[in-house]
Amino acid sequence: MSVALVGAGPGDPELITVGGLARVRAADVLVYDRLVGPELVAEAPERALRVARDTLSQGEANRLLVEHGRRSFVVRLKGGDPFLFGRGGEEALALAGAGVPFEVIPGVSSLTAVPAAAGIPVTHRGAASAVTAFAAHDVEALDAEALARAPGTLVAFMGLAGLARLAERLIAAGLPAGMPAAVVACGTTARQEVVAAPLGAIAPAAVGLPTPALVVIGDVVAVADELARAGSAAA
Amino acid sequence: MSVALVGAGPGDPELITVGGLARVRAADVLVYDRLVGPELVAEAPERALRVARDTLSQGEANRLLVEHGRRSFVVRLKGGDPFLFGRGGEEALALAGAGVPFEVIPGVSSLTAVPAAAGIPVTHRGAASAVTAFAAHDVEALDAEALARAPGTLVAFMGLAGLARLAERLIAAGLPAGMPAAVVACGTTARQEVVAAPLGAIAPAAVGLPTPALVVIGDVVAVADELARAGSAAA
Repeated sequence: MSVALVGAGPGDPELITVGGLARVRAADVLVYDRLVGPELVAEAPERALRVARDTLSQGEANRLLVEHGRRSFVVRLKGGDPFLFGRGGEEALALAGAGVPFEVIPGVSSLTAVPAAAGIPVTHRGAASAVTAFAAHDVEALDAEALARAPGTLVAFMGLAGLARLAERLIAAGLPAGMPAAVVACGTTARQEVVAAPLGAIAPAAVGLPTPALVVIGDVVAVADELARAGSAAA
Repeated sequence: MSVALVGAGPGDPELITVGGLARVRAADVLVYDRLVGPELVAEAPERALRVARDTLSQGEANRLLVEHGRRSFVVRLKGGDPFLFGRGGEEALALAGAGVPFEVIPGVSSLTAVPAAAGIPVTHRGAASAVTAFAAHDVEALDAEALARAPGTLVAFMGLAGLARLAERLIAAGLPAGMPAAVVACGTTARQEVVAAPLGAIAPAAVGLPTPALVVIGDVVAVADELARAGSAAA
C-alpha cells in the first residue's frame, strides 16, 4: 500500500484541502500531530487505527509509517504544511529508502493563514514584496543580522517563548524598535488571540499568550489597523 | 451581501480548501484569475455570473467586487493564497472602505506546494530552517545583497523571465555559483516541468519553460535527488 503525507492546515478544520480530506476519509491508519484539530481526526473511518504522533520520537514515527505503509493506506496528518517546518522531508526520505510508495498533499501553511486571520497580509503593495519565515525555537542560533536585513516581512514560527530575546537581537542588529509587530496565538481557531505593538514593546505585551503562536514583524502589520479604520469609517 | 476572498491553491484543483470550495459552490458572482483551473470555475452554480479578472485593472476589479458585493455573494477566486503575492490586501481595503462585509479564506501557496510537487521541501533538517519568498518580476529593484545573505531557502515568484540576471546578481552578491537551484513550471498540474542545475547554470537550462514558474535556490533542492536515489536504491 502507501503513505500520504497530508497538510491539515493551520487549525480551522475547513482549511484542509479537498484532496487531503479525501485521503483522511480513506485511511486505514491515521498518524496525527497534537496540533491537528479533533474534527479532522474524526473524519477518518471508524475502523481506522489512530496514532497520536506526539508520544513518539521522529525515528519511531518514521518506522511506524514504513511498517504500516507496507500493508495499509496510511495518512500522516500534519499541522500546516508538511514541507514548511513540518519535517515532511525526513519522513519522505525514510519512506523512499524503505521502498514504500508515498505522495505529498500540501496544506495551507500558518505562514499566510494565521496572519490573514488577524487581518495581516504577509505581502502588500507599498509595504512588503517579500517574506522570510524562520524557526525561532533557538533564538541564539539565529543570524540576527541577516534577518534584520531580510527584505520584507519577518514571520517567526515557535518564537513566543524567546520573544523578548528575539526582539532584542533584531533591534541590536538594526531593526527599528518602532517597527510594527504582532503575535497571533491559536490563529484561525475559536481560541485565536492577537496582540500588536511596536517591536520594542511586543514581548511584554504578549506575555501569557497560548501556543502555537506566530510572530509577525513588518509594515504589513499596520494593514490590519488600516482595515479596521476603513471598516469603522464605512460603518 | 458579502465577498469571500478565496485562495484557489497552486493549480491542482484538489488543492483548494474545503471551505474555499464551499464558497465557490455558493457564489452568485465568481471573479477569477487566469491561473485558476477551469475545473474550479466550473464548480460555481450554473446561474452564477463569471468574470475573468485578467481583462480588468486592479482598480476596476476592486470596483466590481464592491458593486456586486453590496447585493450578491461574491467569490473572488485567486491563484495560490490571497495574501502572498495575491494583492488580497488591496481588495480587502477597498471592501472595508466601502462597508462591504468580507472574509478571507486562505489557500495553499505555491511557495510550499510547487517545490513539494518536485520533491523539494522548502525547509529541511540540516539544509534550511528558514525560507524567503520574494517577487522577482523587477530584478534590478531587488536588494541582491540582502537576498544572498538571507538565511535558508530562496523562492522567487515571477522570476523566470529575468532568471539570467537574477542568478548573476545573486552570485555577484555572494551566493556560490554551485548552489543547487531548480525551476518548477506549471507546478502541481499535468503540465509540470522541472529543471535543476547549479545557480550559475540554471538560466540557460530553464530557457523555454512555460509560466507560471517558481525558482528555488538552496541546499533543499538536493533533497529531491536524495529522494530519487533512495527510491531507486529501494526498488
